[in-house]
Amino acid sequence: MEKHDYNKESLELHRKHKGKIEVTSKIDVQTSHDLSRVYSPGVAAPCLAIAADVNEAYNLTLKGNTVAVVSDGSAVLGLGNIGAAAAIPVMEGKAMLFKKFAGLNAFPICLDTQDTAEIIRTVKLIAPVFGGINLEDISAPRSFEIEQSLQDIGIPVFHDDQHGTAIVTLAGLINACKVLGKELSQLKIVVNGAGAAGIAITNLLRCHDNEHDHGSCLAVKSVIVCDSKGIISKDRDNLNEVKQKLLSYTNPENKSGLLLDAMIDADVFIGVSKGNLLEAEHIKAMAENPIVFALANPTPEIMPDKAKELGVAVIATGRSDYPNQVNNVLAFPGIFKGALEVRAERITADMKVAAAEAIAACELNPTTDRIIPNALNMNIADKVAQAVKDKYRG
Amino acid sequence: MEKHDYNKESLELHRKHKGKIEVTSKIDVQTSHDLSRVYSPGVAAPCLAIAADVNEAYNLTLKGNTVAVVSDGSAVLGLGNIGAAAAIPVMEGKAMLFKKFAGLNAFPICLDTQDTAEIIRTVKLIAPVFGGINLEDISAPRSFEIEQSLQDIGIPVFHDDQHGTAIVTLAGLINACKVLGKELSQLKIVVNGAGAAGIAITNLLRCHDNEHDHGSCLAVKSVIVCDSKGIISKDRDNLNEVKQKLLSYTNPENKSGLLLDAMIDADVFIGVSKGNLLEAEHIKAMAENPIVFALANPTPEIMPDKAKELGVAVIATGRSDYPNQVNNVLAFPGIFKGALEVRAERITADMKVAAAEAIAACELNPTTDRIIPNALNMNIADKVAQAVKDKYRG
Repeated sequence: MEKHDYNKESLELHRKHKGKIEVTSKIDVQTSHDLSRVYSPGVAAPCLAIAADVNEAYNLTLKGNTVAVVSDGSAVLGLGNIGAAAAIPVMEGKAMLFKKFAGLNAFPICLDTQDTAEIIRTVKLIAPVFGGINLEDISAPRSFEIEQSLQDIGIPVFHDDQHGTAIVTLAGLINACKVLGKELSQLKIVVNGAGAAGIAITNLLRCHDNEHDHGSCLAVKSVIVCDSKGIISKDRDNLNEVKQKLLSYTNPENKSGLLLDAMIDADVFIGVSKGNLLEAEHIKAMAENPIVFALANPTPEIMPDKAKELGVAVIATGRSDYPNQVNNVLAFPGIFKGALEVRAERITADMKVAAAEAIAACELNPTTDRIIPNALNMNIADKVAQAVKDKYRG
Repeated sequence: MEKHDYNKESLELHRKHKGKIEVTSKIDVQTSHDLSRVYSPGVAAPCLAIAADVNEAYNLTLKGNTVAVVSDGSAVLGLGNIGAAAAIPVMEGKAMLFKKFAGLNAFPICLDTQDTAEIIRTVKLIAPVFGGINLEDISAPRSFEIEQSLQDIGIPVFHDDQHGTAIVTLAGLINACKVLGKELSQLKIVVNGAGAAGIAITNLLRCHDNEHDHGSCLAVKSVIVCDSKGIISKDRDNLNEVKQKLLSYTNPENKSGLLLDAMIDADVFIGVSKGNLLEAEHIKAMAENPIVFALANPTPEIMPDKAKELGVAVIATGRSDYPNQVNNVLAFPGIFKGALEVRAERITADMKVAAAEAIAACELNPTTDRIIPNALNMNIADKVAQAVKDKYRG
């Protein structure tokens, strides 16, 4: 089916239903006796129990299984800065996925500000009702500061555009290595794109998490990050703060030049920027049995058919109409489910790696066309949740 | 059933269900085709439609039938300032009532601040997702400033503790007058309590709405307001700003003294402060066929049996176990339903009076024990919604 039809069908569906989620009661109220238990006067009892011990909110209210999906509409899908109201359909969709895959309640909080400090403050203020905060479609580098500033509010705050993509990418890489007989830690990896996803992928691959413990993970030794101006190296000037930080743990040989220079002998290309930018020369410069994650959406950096013709051994994209789809829905429902069940205060790097390993393990017999489980596989979230819980306890 | 049992049953119910509301999907997602319409890539179409015209959010998202129930936990039920988390059970209960009586989605927003300016700002920031804001259990006089400051944000903002109580009280008074052959505008009314409900009742009775038009309503000529120190009169010093404002449109004869002095020849007593404060001498001081609204909760200013013994002609309370219960649920679901259906920018005094008249009219044959419809009457909200819509159009 053509892309054009999805747009038309989607618009009709949204117009017909006036939104995709609703708030419903879990308890029927028919009599005044019912009303006296769910509302005044009986409701005073759970209120007082929480006033005496705030942790009781997890036992007596929706908090323990409810996530806020927070966006400022500054980087919605590939549509750019379309604002808070225009972001609502995405956030409602996300809420549906939380329910379907993890049984969690999620509610869209679309903020009419793009001021970083104000977003941070607002998330803190609305936190009492929520067990976790999923940040969504907030533009980099503001998203880094926002997420980082919220790590100590007592509930998990997770920017899915960063870590969801990173976790599923790592899961795919684990299985690609298994299929091709490569060693993950020995891979030479090029990440093209230094936005939210590119930085998060790089940090996860390098086990770099400078604010909190990461424990034992499978650090890839050589990661080079490129942006639209080429390789991020010590020779560049005018690097923003986020890119400057990359210098301390990427590009160990301090290569400089264009993307093509970075590709020489690379085992893996991970693209999270623009479509249609890989040419034959890029692929031919890579090492034997190259692995390509062409995650730009909707048009990948290189189309799968062309990549295979050029000798790519494993190709993954963000698209559902090709094998090996990197879809965040494999990660975020299970991650929040696990974190909420143990009331984790944050999602650690260790938990992210454990989630990636759990996703990879769900593909029992990986092949070049099956390194990542299907996005609609209903078993994944529970496995991911269990892995996150085990890591929390461990 | 004893109060003690309600508390125990309520606590058990809340613990069993871990909250009373959930967020559910209105559309089933089974296939990747489904996913492509509710989420990426198809969801781009409704996003772009809203980016082009923000009013499309009413047609394409939950906004048009969703209300935020906002509290800072500063004045929860009669429990006082128990904070944001402890307020959640009340706000969830409120959300249930919005769904049951008006079919609206409502979601609790419990704010971890009691700073007036910060609450005002936060409500503005979260407004894109919501069609209306129900302020709840915010202490006076902060609640007045918060509500007033939010009247121009483009969606209705309604402090239910003020106006819900006022509207249902007015509905009851309309029918009490009908039963007793009294003329509403000629009544001498004493309001005891100058908090959120007392001020709002007084304003509605006096058709006083100094910020926005009120149009034609049935102004009661004589209202005297008392607080814990007695009659609010020009002879008092140390009146706060809100009470000072009352001087211009209440207590026309500038009576001073205690509550007992105010009660002399009063037709109506409306209590919204403390229980058990009306003695025989108060009732005996009143005019013939006195009307008493003893709305303190859970213990009324005077118990109905005692009031009747002392000659009170009509007695209303906030309790479900006596006739004539003043219950906000008769007002807020229909008011928001009507306002959202016409996309009213605010709830005007005219709409509130129309809502009160609609509620009163639902009691076709009022008697002294039936001046207010039953709170669980499922027909009221539609009648109230229609009255609000008619007033908006009219």
